Amino acid sequence: MYIGAAYYPELWDESEIDHDIEVCKEFGLNTLRIAEFAWSRMEPKEGKFDFGWLERVMDKLHAAGIHVLLCTPTCTPPRWLFTKYPETKTVMDTGERVEISSRCHPCKSSPIMREKNRIIVTEMAKRFGHHPALIGWQIDNELYVYDNGCHCPLCRKNFRKWLKDRYGTIENLNKEFIMDRWSLTYDSFEDVIPPKRSEWAHPSLEAAWFEFYSNLTVDYAEEQAEILHKYSDAPAGTDLMVLNRFSFYNATKKLDVVQLNHYDTARRLTRPPFFYNFIRPIKDRPFWVTETQVGWNGSKTAQSRYRPEGNCYVNTWLPFAMGGEMNLYWLFRAQRSGQEIAHGAILSAAGRPYRVSEEVKQAAQDIKKALPFLENSAVKSKIALHYSSTGENDFAVAPIVETMPYFDTILQKFHDAFWHYNVDVIEPCHSLEGYEVLISPLVPYIPKEDAARIKQWVENGGTWIVGPMTDIYDASLKKNDKAPFYFLEELAGVYTVYQKPIVNDVFKAKWQDGTPAEISTYFDAFRPTDSRALVTYDGEEFDGYAAVTERKVGKGKVILLGTVLGIDDLRKLVDLKPIANASENVRVIERSGKENGIIVAELKHEPGFVDLCGEYTDLIHERTLSGHVEIAPHEVLVLKKI
Amino acid sequence: MYIGAAYYPELWDESEIDHDIEVCKEFGLNTLRIAEFAWSRMEPKEGKFDFGWLERVMDKLHAAGIHVLLCTPTCTPPRWLFTKYPETKTVMDTGERVEISSRCHPCKSSPIMREKNRIIVTEMAKRFGHHPALIGWQIDNELYVYDNGCHCPLCRKNFRKWLKDRYGTIENLNKEFIMDRWSLTYDSFEDVIPPKRSEWAHPSLEAAWFEFYSNLTVDYAEEQAEILHKYSDAPAGTDLMVLNRFSFYNATKKLDVVQLNHYDTARRLTRPPFFYNFIRPIKDRPFWVTETQVGWNGSKTAQSRYRPEGNCYVNTWLPFAMGGEMNLYWLFRAQRSGQEIAHGAILSAAGRPYRVSEEVKQAAQDIKKALPFLENSAVKSKIALHYSSTGENDFAVAPIVETMPYFDTILQKFHDAFWHYNVDVIEPCHSLEGYEVLISPLVPYIPKEDAARIKQWVENGGTWIVGPMTDIYDASLKKNDKAPFYFLEELAGVYTVYQKPIVNDVFKAKWQDGTPAEISTYFDAFRPTDSRALVTYDGEEFDGYAAVTERKVGKGKVILLGTVLGIDDLRKLVDLKPIANASENVRVIERSGKENGIIVAELKHEPGFVDLCGEYTDLIHERTLSGHVEIAPHEVLVLKKI
Amino acid sequence: MYIGAAYYPELWDESEIDHDIEVCKEFGLNTLRIAEFAWSRMEPKEGKFDFGWLERVMDKLHAAGIHVLLCTPTCTPPRWLFTKYPETKTVMDTGERVEISSRCHPCKSSPIMREKNRIIVTEMAKRFGHHPALIGWQIDNELYVYDNGCHCPLCRKNFRKWLKDRYGTIENLNKEFIMDRWSLTYDSFEDVIPPKRSEWAHPSLEAAWFEFYSNLTVDYAEEQAEILHKYSDAPAGTDLMVLNRFSFYNATKKLDVVQLNHYDTARRLTRPPFFYNFIRPIKDRPFWVTETQVGWNGSKTAQSRYRPEGNCYVNTWLPFAMGGEMNLYWLFRAQRSGQEIAHGAILSAAGRPYRVSEEVKQAAQDIKKALPFLENSAVKSKIALHYSSTGENDFAVAPIVETMPYFDTILQKFHDAFWHYNVDVIEPCHSLEGYEVLISPLVPYIPKEDAARIKQWVENGGTWIVGPMTDIYDASLKKNDKAPFYFLEELAGVYTVYQKPIVNDVFKAKWQDGTPAEISTYFDAFRPTDSRALVTYDGEEFDGYAAVTERKVGKGKVILLGTVLGIDDLRKLVDLKPIANASENVRVIERSGKENGIIVAELKHEPGFVDLCGEYTDLIHERTLSGHVEIAPHEVLVLKKI
Repeated sequence: MYIGAAYYPELWDESEIDHDIEVCKEFGLNTLRIAEFAWSRMEPKEGKFDFGWLERVMDKLHAAGIHVLLCTPTCTPPRWLFTKYPETKTVMDTGERVEISSRCHPCKSSPIMREKNRIIVTEMAKRFGHHPALIGWQIDNELYVYDNGCHCPLCRKNFRKWLKDRYGTIENLNKEFIMDRWSLTYDSFEDVIPPKRSEWAHPSLEAAWFEFYSNLTVDYAEEQAEILHKYSDAPAGTDLMVLNRFSFYNATKKLDVVQLNHYDTARRLTRPPFFYNFIRPIKDRPFWVTETQVGWNGSKTAQSRYRPEGNCYVNTWLPFAMGGEMNLYWLFRAQRSGQEIAHGAILSAAGRPYRVSEEVKQAAQDIKKALPFLENSAVKSKIALHYSSTGENDFAVAPIVETMPYFDTILQKFHDAFWHYNVDVIEPCHSLEGYEVLISPLVPYIPKEDAARIKQWVENGGTWIVGPMTDIYDASLKKNDKAPFYFLEELAGVYTVYQKPIVNDVFKAKWQDGTPAEISTYFDAFRPTDSRALVTYDGEEFDGYAAVTERKVGKGKVILLGTVLGIDDLRKLVDLKPIANASENVRVIERSGKENGIIVAELKHEPGFVDLCGEYTDLIHERTLSGHVEIAPHEVLVLKKI
Repeated sequence: MYIGAAYYPELWDESEIDHDIEVCKEFGLNTLRIAEFAWSRMEPKEGKFDFGWLERVMDKLHAAGIHVLLCTPTCTPPRWLFTKYPETKTVMDTGERVEISSRCHPCKSSPIMREKNRIIVTEMAKRFGHHPALIGWQIDNELYVYDNGCHCPLCRKNFRKWLKDRYGTIENLNKEFIMDRWSLTYDSFEDVIPPKRSEWAHPSLEAAWFEFYSNLTVDYAEEQAEILHKYSDAPAGTDLMVLNRFSFYNATKKLDVVQLNHYDTARRLTRPPFFYNFIRPIKDRPFWVTETQVGWNGSKTAQSRYRPEGNCYVNTWLPFAMGGEMNLYWLFRAQRSGQEIAHGAILSAAGRPYRVSEEVKQAAQDIKKALPFLENSAVKSKIALHYSSTGENDFAVAPIVETMPYFDTILQKFHDAFWHYNVDVIEPCHSLEGYEVLISPLVPYIPKEDAARIKQWVENGGTWIVGPMTDIYDASLKKNDKAPFYFLEELAGVYTVYQKPIVNDVFKAKWQDGTPAEISTYFDAFRPTDSRALVTYDGEEFDGYAAVTERKVGKGKVILLGTVLGIDDLRKLVDLKPIANASENVRVIERSGKENGIIVAELKHEPGFVDLCGEYTDLIHERTLSGHVEIAPHEVLVLKKI
Repeated sequence: MYIGAAYYPELWDESEIDHDIEVCKEFGLNTLRIAEFAWSRMEPKEGKFDFGWLERVMDKLHAAGIHVLLCTPTCTPPRWLFTKYPETKTVMDTGERVEISSRCHPCKSSPIMREKNRIIVTEMAKRFGHHPALIGWQIDNELYVYDNGCHCPLCRKNFRKWLKDRYGTIENLNKEFIMDRWSLTYDSFEDVIPPKRSEWAHPSLEAAWFEFYSNLTVDYAEEQAEILHKYSDAPAGTDLMVLNRFSFYNATKKLDVVQLNHYDTARRLTRPPFFYNFIRPIKDRPFWVTETQVGWNGSKTAQSRYRPEGNCYVNTWLPFAMGGEMNLYWLFRAQRSGQEIAHGAILSAAGRPYRVSEEVKQAAQDIKKALPFLENSAVKSKIALHYSSTGENDFAVAPIVETMPYFDTILQKFHDAFWHYNVDVIEPCHSLEGYEVLISPLVPYIPKEDAARIKQWVENGGTWIVGPMTDIYDASLKKNDKAPFYFLEELAGVYTVYQKPIVNDVFKAKWQDGTPAEISTYFDAFRPTDSRALVTYDGEEFDGYAAVTERKVGKGKVILLGTVLGIDDLRKLVDLKPIANASENVRVIERSGKENGIIVAELKHEPGFVDLCGEYTDLIHERTLSGHVEIAPHEVLVLKKI
């Protein structure tokens, strides 16, 4: 288990490092992430490399038993590079080349940028690829399609080629995008201009541009991975942010480990568990949390409000409880100046620990106590929830429902129904082996091969809870002109009579036994053709039509949602028992394998409880527990089954 | 009576048209508006025309008894045109030529754009000018001064010429705009740069630029009208939006019929009646509603909140009740993709009716029942309310009062005082023949000839309720240096002691009998010189001064408002009985002519009532009514006097 | 004592001036501020001057006993100048030269702009430098670093030179700004681009750019002062706005009188007294208020809400009560058109007084009654409060605490604790002679020489209340890497255990006697090393640590604040009696010298009181007062000690 922080030794006197190592030891930090932005120190002049300072740091860390996660610095090329090769700077969608004032500004298409990347990464890989402190690589930093991508002639050319590869002819693209609508019909691929933020742009074009630019960015990262793999056995990843619009599956395809950065306020402590459930199934290897806040976020101002005591403690615990093996803070020592001067850290700029760092220390100690149990057990889920990059991208450009932020709906209305269950959050392309229930809300486009695979899995006994707003688009963000869905009506055995993408509190619904069902956000009214209604609209325009239907398919069933159910109502559709009875504020995680047990974490800073079935050893407090157990605010219990 | 929708057959397989015609018949739609954006399909290559597909559509529609309103497609020239002639693209006020990504982007000055317009319109007019399905023409689409107009060298040159024509010399313009203020004195017309939105620009220049660009746009439309009139007898109009800043009177001067597009939320259902009262008197011919929403508005997101049942029904009825002969929805069938994918329609993209379309069907049936009555009666008004393009333009650039949106004040504080009266809303240039009462709030500039005409009308017996903030500017948006008004003090017989354009709830006022008068928004304090006070300030700074005065002038009188009265107080100034006693939520329309009666419409989705005087036949429900009649939410009663 | 207004005779018929002079006499206005924007009238063509009209105005005013404050018009050069010399126009940080549409647009570096300034100022100074009406000069208008300064090549070059002068080598600048952080290391000064607002820019660079541009602007003004001093004995100043980011001390160093413009809403009537306390100590000469509103502010819309009766009266009185000798309104007569058409004035555009002008008249009369007392007494303070230009600049670019607007914190949490005390608000560079208490919150950077001077003053008996967030940066906005402060820990005898820049209502504190202390905004936790705790955290994370400490130093003491105290708690730290016991809404000012007494002003439009010790003559109401005296809303009492 790796606990540590981002460390920028290039910004401090070399004399500070011994002090910093002492602090690491005192606080139980065994891993530092370094070199992230240090290109100008590693290659101060073109082709002149200086790795001595870095090697000295790594040697010292190794001597102190501290591991190193080494970063490629390609997010921040040196100024001499931009000055000599201005074509390496991103062109904004206003047409101007960006000035170099912060970071993440290189053009991803520039051949010279790519070449300079390859050179520095090769040098690093050769020099440090087998350093004994090295435990892994991070490529670049928080890759994303920033600021609507680069609009230089090369990137535009690459986009046109990408469209040509996908659509073949301009006539076909015109047809798929229906460009005739406003006489916007392209006469050739040369006519295509990437969408600008100032325009009222075509959503199909916007989605395509984001997808193209994502792929270009992934290619930019994979080029580095290839070099790293050549010279080093340490696993390589890239630290991604908590947003799947830039696809995690795509970005990590050729990488070895999934790395995640997250910064959430105290009230949003429900989001990291969602992402842990999402990144755990991607690779067989445990995921790494590469960045999270210690005390507060900040740029020129400290942000994200007050966090109660214990917030850092439980935030530190969660990745280990849920399938990860690393938690690194951003950052070890606060900046003395610059754009992020107000960001929290383990140490202040003055080198003194903040109060919150005591929680890190405590967590490090407690995790150590639970280590054998964690290493001998894993998180396995019977429930899978679809969360798609396509959904993020399509609903970003065409949200359809005014008050339905895609991610928050998935999080709050679906994922948060299952705090007492293990859940895997997966992309539609992910295997369904081992799952009993699959929930697929707001997956606007499902490729045919995935649809076929899901259908097969249902026939073999799976329960598919699908909708609302799933299967509504094709790959070009186009609706079907024959039905509101492409294949779901037939599969679910319904005819869609009406649709209403308008939020209201007028519509009501009830279960077949007459008990009310909570509905919101979006409304489809179905007439069951070869299915039965589970929930029916009650009064108003859709009175009597089905809001939720069920159809037996092979050994399994398809439950179609025409609306967003309340979380208690959603849970009724899942025929599985929770891991344990517990209060709402408590997340319960089941661990199984050589050893078995549960981990219980309080996430809302309120008292809570869990009712245990049988006897457990509380590994942190070294006691035996059973029955009704009270849990203090932000407490974590690691309970090994006796 | 024409009921129908916008139809874009160019976007669908030709095989769909038979299905679509069947739906029209089922729902009682007898009119389709087509070809609005179809230039690229009608002229796919420069000079190569293809009207076959359109002719086949029109023939089929004619065969099915469906009328066609044909649109000129000049709002969306084909991409080949912009590519070959880039000078046809608008230059934004940032200096850049716009990229072609949506619509309404052509420069209105470009000679080549004008020529290409003339060619396509001539071809259409020749080909379809006498087609039996044709009932009228729509020129372009929602003409307006978009995005602050085009700033290309030609448009700037035309603006300078327009200023020279108006002001003669640069010295005179400097004097009229008082350009000396900040040493901004122009040395020649060449110095004039149209105002940019990023500037703190001179309001007189802003107003002039908008007026110039409006005139240029009208000229652009009139050129098309001339061609249509040459080759076709069908009436031509242009579909205008609910905003008179781009002047309705100016835009329709050489056109045959007034066309209106409106999209209001359920709560803003009070706005369309205002506009019907406004556009009814412009031409002798009944007006056309060319666009309104069916269920919901939308772009990439469905907008405008939930509408209760019946909203579409009553919204369909209103234009027919108030003097129109057409109501077309936007749109017949929802888009499959693109910028307006989330807009409501009669049919979904899948070709299925939405629930709300049942209301269209019902309205079509009920209107049919009332048809003879509607054709044998008309709306005539004794009250006229001024609503001026100058007011929209002047208060847009210099609002003066912080919390007084010009249009909403006219609507809510003046027009909405008269829900149980017929009212004509008119431009100050409109004839006053037949009116007994004229209300003129917030008409900042009244040309001398209109002032003389109004005075003559008062002397002949009219009651003129005028103010506040009327007659405060000249044609260049300049205040008088001798008095707060140009002619109103003398005409109203007052001396203006104080003025206060600051909203507050401190000021109170009372009628001469001591009952309180509701006042708000703006405050002038008058001393009657040759008039009498009707309402007097009560306490605070203006205590004892008049807020409202009355002066007899010839056989008539001038009532000067120094403040915005509450609607109940305003009605006290009008010596006319309502058409009927009714609840507040009910609009009452009097129809007279060969047949007589009233139409009653509930607009707030609440129960209401009307007290009938005498006996009426309820034409929709085929019953006889008299006395106190209850009205259901969004119900419409067409009551023919027996 | 000068009371008057800004007057723009160049905008009105010369025939109006006699009328305007009559109004001045009637309202007691004895001073007009003229020529501010009149360059185009004084030099209509390059090198052709026309001062005849201005001389006639000044002659007439002199004849009527009205003084003239003459302005240099360099804020609004004539259009011919910009047309002929486009390099005189500011380049915005988007790269475009600004269009000339309002004011304040000249580049401050342009040699031709500078030359043209010198010429017009020389001509004015020669012509009017000894005019009998002249009482002073105003240079330019509201000088400031507008819109992020000018980004033309010359300004950039000057900035680079300024950086070179300050930092010597680029290596040193890199080190001071820590440019290595994101490999942003400059290779030469030529690499430095001034920060753009669209960038996520380095705060050290932002602060430096603002400081450089301020200095350039001061240089631009001083060049004019030199000319004025050559040809005229009248004192010269420049009218500054209520924001010390553009430093008052710096801007007025070579000027003769401090001039202030302020426009505050009724609720912000607490701000002008703060600024009077700030500008009073800068020069030995009484300060001038060059602009304040009469009735309402306004641009194209009248702004700043309703002001109750009396607000103008008390606002007129305050500068005279607090050490000034001038109060001029903006403006004498409202504009007839243009960007500020909605601004209030003494006369409307029609030449009629507004109601509020009666309050001006009353104030002028009452001030006259108190004149001998005002002339024979002055405001002297024992308390000094630091308000630093560096604080404004540093916290503007790096606010650190999210909900701590720098100025409002100084105003409301520190200055407003002392409504019943005389307080001088001073820059850290100001002499401490005569003060007993110095309060220094939020002074992020204290130069060594100032620190030494303060320490000396403490040792001589001063009480220094310092913090929070004082001494946290060096001159380059960089934190110390050895301690959270540069010198304060040692001086105050504490060790800073923890810091928390996060607002919360969880933290509590108490005085040593157990009574609760109100704390907010920011939190440092100290361990006294050579000091004693005065206020201690009570519960939660910092429980038991000191929030406020005291250390004896020489004959004086240093009280270190680790948090923002409530104003009642802050006052407990000051061992001085108030001038008088009075209600919270009443500001009490002590005047001493040949005559002695107090001035009492009600600022919140509520009833209040003051308890007098001894007998006083009420100079306005000509009566004798003693004991408990009631004060009406917005009343002013001038009480001369008997």
